[in-house]
This record gives sequence, C-alpha cells and structure tokens, in this order.
Amino acid sequence: MKTYNIALIPGDGIGKDVTGAAWQVMQAAAKRGGFALDGTRFPWSCAYYLETGAMMPPDGIETLRKFDAIYLGAVGWSAEVPDSVSLHGLLLPIRKGFTQYANIRPHRLLPGVQGPLRSDGFDILCIRENTEGEYSGAGGRIHSGTANEVAVETAIFTRAGVERILRFGFEQARARRKKLASVTKSNAQKHSMVFWDEVTREVAKDYADVEVSHYHIDAIAARMVLAPESLDVIVASNLFGDILTDIGAAIQGGLGYAASANINPDRSAPSMFEPVHGSAPDIAHLGVANPIAAIWSGAMMLEHLGEGHAAAEVMSAIESITARGIGTIAGKDRTETITQAVLAALS
Amino acid sequence: MKTYNIALIPGDGIGKDVTGAAWQVMQAAAKRGGFALDGTRFPWSCAYYLETGAMMPPDGIETLRKFDAIYLGAVGWSAEVPDSVSLHGLLLPIRKGFTQYANIRPHRLLPGVQGPLRSDGFDILCIRENTEGEYSGAGGRIHSGTANEVAVETAIFTRAGVERILRFGFEQARARRKKLASVTKSNAQKHSMVFWDEVTREVAKDYADVEVSHYHIDAIAARMVLAPESLDVIVASNLFGDILTDIGAAIQGGLGYAASANINPDRSAPSMFEPVHGSAPDIAHLGVANPIAAIWSGAMMLEHLGEGHAAAEVMSAIESITARGIGTIAGKDRTETITQAVLAALS
Ligand SMILES: CC(C)[C@H](C(=O)O)[C@@H](O)C(=O)O
Ligand SMILES: CC(C)[C@H](C(=O)O)[C@@H](O)C(=O)O
Repeated sequence: MKTYNIALIPGDGIGKDVTGAAWQVMQAAAKRGGFALDGTRFPWSCAYYLETGAMMPPDGIETLRKFDAIYLGAVGWSAEVPDSVSLHGLLLPIRKGFTQYANIRPHRLLPGVQGPLRSDGFDILCIRENTEGEYSGAGGRIHSGTANEVAVETAIFTRAGVERILRFGFEQARARRKKLASVTKSNAQKHSMVFWDEVTREVAKDYADVEVSHYHIDAIAARMVLAPESLDVIVASNLFGDILTDIGAAIQGGLGYAASANINPDRSAPSMFEPVHGSAPDIAHLGVANPIAAIWSGAMMLEHLGEGHAAAEVMSAIESITARGIGTIAGKDRTETITQAVLAALS
Repeated sequence: MKTYNIALIPGDGIGKDVTGAAWQVMQAAAKRGGFALDGTRFPWSCAYYLETGAMMPPDGIETLRKFDAIYLGAVGWSAEVPDSVSLHGLLLPIRKGFTQYANIRPHRLLPGVQGPLRSDGFDILCIRENTEGEYSGAGGRIHSGTANEVAVETAIFTRAGVERILRFGFEQARARRKKLASVTKSNAQKHSMVFWDEVTREVAKDYADVEVSHYHIDAIAARMVLAPESLDVIVASNLFGDILTDIGAAIQGGLGYAASANINPDRSAPSMFEPVHGSAPDIAHLGVANPIAAIWSGAMMLEHLGEGHAAAEVMSAIESITARGIGTIAGKDRTETITQAVLAALS
C-alpha cells in the first residue's frame, strides 16, 4: 500500500486540539482511498522550549526533511515565550528552510456559513510569497533609547524570488478562471514595488491566456470587502499576502475556516500545511476550537500528495456538514462534534 | 469679519467636480457662521504638468505656506502622467513639506448608507503617520535586468516621528472613547515594529486613562471586517494606515464617503484636506461623482480652522440628506443634486 510519511507538529494551545481532529479525518480519508498516512509526532512547541531552551532540536530541520509533508497545528502565543522565539524558532525556519515559497490560502464561504459581508459569491485563491520581501529580517537601530533613535527595516526582493512566485501564481490562475491580480504599492514604494511590477509584466508574457490586473495593496484590500467576487487568483508579497489573507479569512467567516499550505513547488523539500489561526490560549483544551480550517488544510495536504480524490472527498464532507449548520456558528459545536460529523459524512 | 485664506487645488478628473461642490457648501457654512473663506485657486494638476513640465511651480510649497489651509480635490491617474510624477510632484511634497504628520480619516456609516458589512455600528478614527516609515523612499536596486537583480526598500522610523504620531493619537483617544489601537507587525518585522511597540508603551505612560491595545496589521485588518465596533482610535504607520483607511472606506460604503485631513498639529504650516478617493478619470466631468467625501473633508477643514460649529452644521446637513436616501446609492444622484440638497439642508 502506498504510504506517506507525515511529520505532525501539533504545537501549542488549540494547535493540539485541531491537529488531533484533522488527523482522524485524514486517516479516514486514507483508508477509503487505499493509501496510508504514517504520522510521526514532534512535541516542538512553547512547552518544549520551556523545557529544553529551543523550539526544536538543532537538527530539527534535517529531521523533517525526510518526510513527505509536514502538518502543523499552531505555535506561539504563550505568555512566557515571546513571538521572536516561537515563530522565529520554528514556523519561519521551516517555511524558509524548505523554500516553501508559495503560501496558498483559499477564501470562499462554505455552504451554511454566514460571513460578515452581505455579498457571498466569491472564490479567491491568495498566493503569498513566503520567504523574502518585507519579512527578510534585515535592518537595525541606532541611538537606541535616545531622542535621536532611528530604526530601519529593509524589504529585500530578489528577481528569482519574485519571478518564481509569479510563475506559480500564473500556473494556478491558468487552472482556475484565468485571472490574476498582482499586488504592489508602486506609487509609494518605488524601489521594491516598481521592480515587482516589472517582473509581473515580464512573466505575464509567458501567460498570454491569463488576464492580469495590477492593484495597489490599499485598493485591493478595499476590493476584497466591496467586490470580492471580482477577484480570483491574487499574488502578493510576504507582507501584503499576510494582510490580504487575514482579510480573506475574515470575509469567509473568520479564522475557523482559513486553511493554508506552505508549498515548495519544486518538491525539493517537504511542504507544510497549517490552519491560519494561532494557538488561541484562551480556548485551548476546552474542546471548543473549530477544526474546520485544520481539516481543510489536511485536504490541501492530501491534494499536494497527489491524492486529489481523497482531498475532494474531505472537502465534500466538510461542505455537507456546514450546509447542515454544523460548525457554522462560533462556539456552538464542540471540536469533537464537528469532527465526528465530518467522519460520518466521509463514510 | 474673520477671514481664512484657503488654497484650493482641484487637481485632476473628479477632483475638480467635487472641489466645486465642497467649496459651495463651505461658503454657505461660512456665511451662516459669520466668517469668510477667501479661496485662491491653483491649477496644479496633470494638465498643468503636461503644459509646464512640473506639477507645481518651483516655489509652489512657499506659495502655499502663507495660507490658513489647503483644500485638494484629487491628483494623478492620468494615463500620460505616471504616479511617480503626479503624486511625488504634488501630493506627497505637500504632506511632507508641511510636516502634516497626522493623516486623519473617520470611518463610520452615514445614516441611510448601506455598507458591505452586515454589522453597522462602528465609529473608527484612523490616524496614519504621514511623513516617514515605509514610504520614506529609501532603497535601490543592483544587477538591474539580470537574473541576479535585487531590489531593496527601506522603511525608516525615527523616534520623534513615531512619538509625535502616537501622542497625537492618544490626545484624540482621550477626546473620544479612550481606546487606542496601535498597529505593528512586530512578530515579523523585528527592527521597525518592535521599536514602534516600545515607543507606544513609553508614550502610553503619559495617558494612563487611555486603554491601549496592540494589534498586528493582519489581525486588525480582519477585525475591521469582523468586529469594527470593537475599535475606536487606530494609530498606524504610513503603509499600515494607508491600507487600514482603505478598508475603513470600504466598510463605510466606499470611497464616496471617505474624508481625510493631513494635519500639521503644531500649526507651523498649513494643513491639507482632501477626499480619499482618486481622480477617477472614467467618470470625470460627467457630473456623477459623489461629493460627500469632499464635503465631509471640508467640514474637517472648518473644524481645524476653529469653526467647530460650522463644521457640525455641515455634518448635520450631510447626515440629513443621506438619511433621506440622497447620495447613498452609487451613481443614482448627480453631483449637483447632492450638493444642492446639502445646501438646502444647511439653510
Ligand atoms: C505568526 C506570523 C509570523 C505569521 C506570518 O505573518 O507569517 C502569521 O500571521 C501567518 O499569516 O501565518
Ligand atoms: C496616492 C497615494 C500615494 C496615497 C497614499 O498612499 O498616501 C493614497 O493612497 C492615499 O491614501 O492618500
């Protein structure tokens, strides 16, 4: 039987709750699909850090490298462990270390979910550059603590980095409605964003069948609220994609429905799948976290592994339960209730 | 009679249409208030650039300096004149040249306006840093046009710059519901945004009566869509404020309702008032632009000039006509109809 080796990192808070739920569903889908998912659990988290002094062992990245995919719940947000440790010690090194340069996030309303917008007919795929740009980490400060203090943060964009995310986006657009929105702020950031615009125009030449629109980040943020149905594939930098995908999560009803994949398109290293939400310490382990975003992320993993049929079955199962009002109202249904309903719908 | 000297820059496209409308209303308000507005019109615009080679004369800034306030319609977006010319040749030099460091934008639904959200009970004041940060213009490129090309854009934050916008924000919060949201992305931008967080914590000590919340830009963008009623005063950097105020414009029904003030709080130079919308060449001079954002911006100017009563009268007039359904549906009422209705409501 075909077997995929999956690294499971439940992480912190509700990360653990939803990973358990999603894993049960993925296992059920695998059984139906005639393949196996062999999970290896890693306890890397803030708790692990408080015990060992690191979010993961020094050879953590090397350990993960041999897996077919990584599934992550959520890390961070523990009061005792600053983000600089939890995120920069685990999440971001995996994204960058494995060149998971395409962070993909689908935004549409599941049937039965009432979003905050009056309008509901949208189906957006956000593709966020995941390895460089505004989150390069370059910068510093002078005259610290004095009235003369200055802090700088430098966004770094490479041609290879911009080109590959745009190509990835165009490929996705081709497989969908052949519309791509490229996001910049080239009227105010004339170095990085004018560059991004130029690369977009060049890459677009290879995809004459795809209609390209150029938006400024402020305008497209407003458009996601006013006319989301006019958008299809959106390609944006690390920061702009980060912001737009949270707006995307909002219009699809909240973080309980926001799934994501951190893809290494060359498959030279494993990709990582995670719900967009954080570890939500306030509701951790109460059994009330909505596992739908996590299960949806699991479906994205199955898709990436080449098990498209199983992925589609999981999505249908999710949609059939939300259509019946299960998991559609924040806090109403317990994690376990939603998970069992998805499992029942699957069989 | 008390007379204020106002520099009027109608600019391009619908900038001209709405400036005419707003000016009529401001004049009527002045007459009722027993003060005079003496307007001097400047034709600085893309048309002016195409004629003279510059968006404004070399002594443009000096010419404007002696006015009590500047009122601007909209500039840019002409196909023949790139943004780099129109914005960097007029709008941005005024903002920076006159140290209009506080860009203020109110976001609430006018009565009778149906926004895109199901929820409508919000009243947000966004305060955007307007002179530095991500729009400093610093950066460059190497290896242009080669596979090895790199572009960098450096955000520069100074202690004085960050501190003054935060103080301004805290003062506004004090005059409102005593809640301030400070916006960063300090979990991913550890130089500039950690600095901003530090300055926020320091300045907050002087405003113990104001409740401060720290949000990441992605989270607050989502919150503006999911729970805008939970927000009051928002203080954000140039880029983050730019994005949030477009989301604010969206949730208040669109750019037709988004007013703004570029304030020099020390009054060492004139402040500038402008609707947030652009020049919208596609509908220019058809008489269909909604002048409400422009009139509202005029009210903000009257307020800034110390004519708070007249400002309040203009706002009541706007609200009384929108409550009756005038100017509330895009494209339904003509610029002139809306303007006449406001004038009638004023008298
Ligand atoms: C936690 C944070 C560093 C992360 C990011 O900004 O990438 C998160 O917001 C996300 O969107 O995955
Ligand atoms: C036109 C552009 C430079 C401007 C800005 O980003 O400041 C506009 O978006 C605004 O919000 O006033």
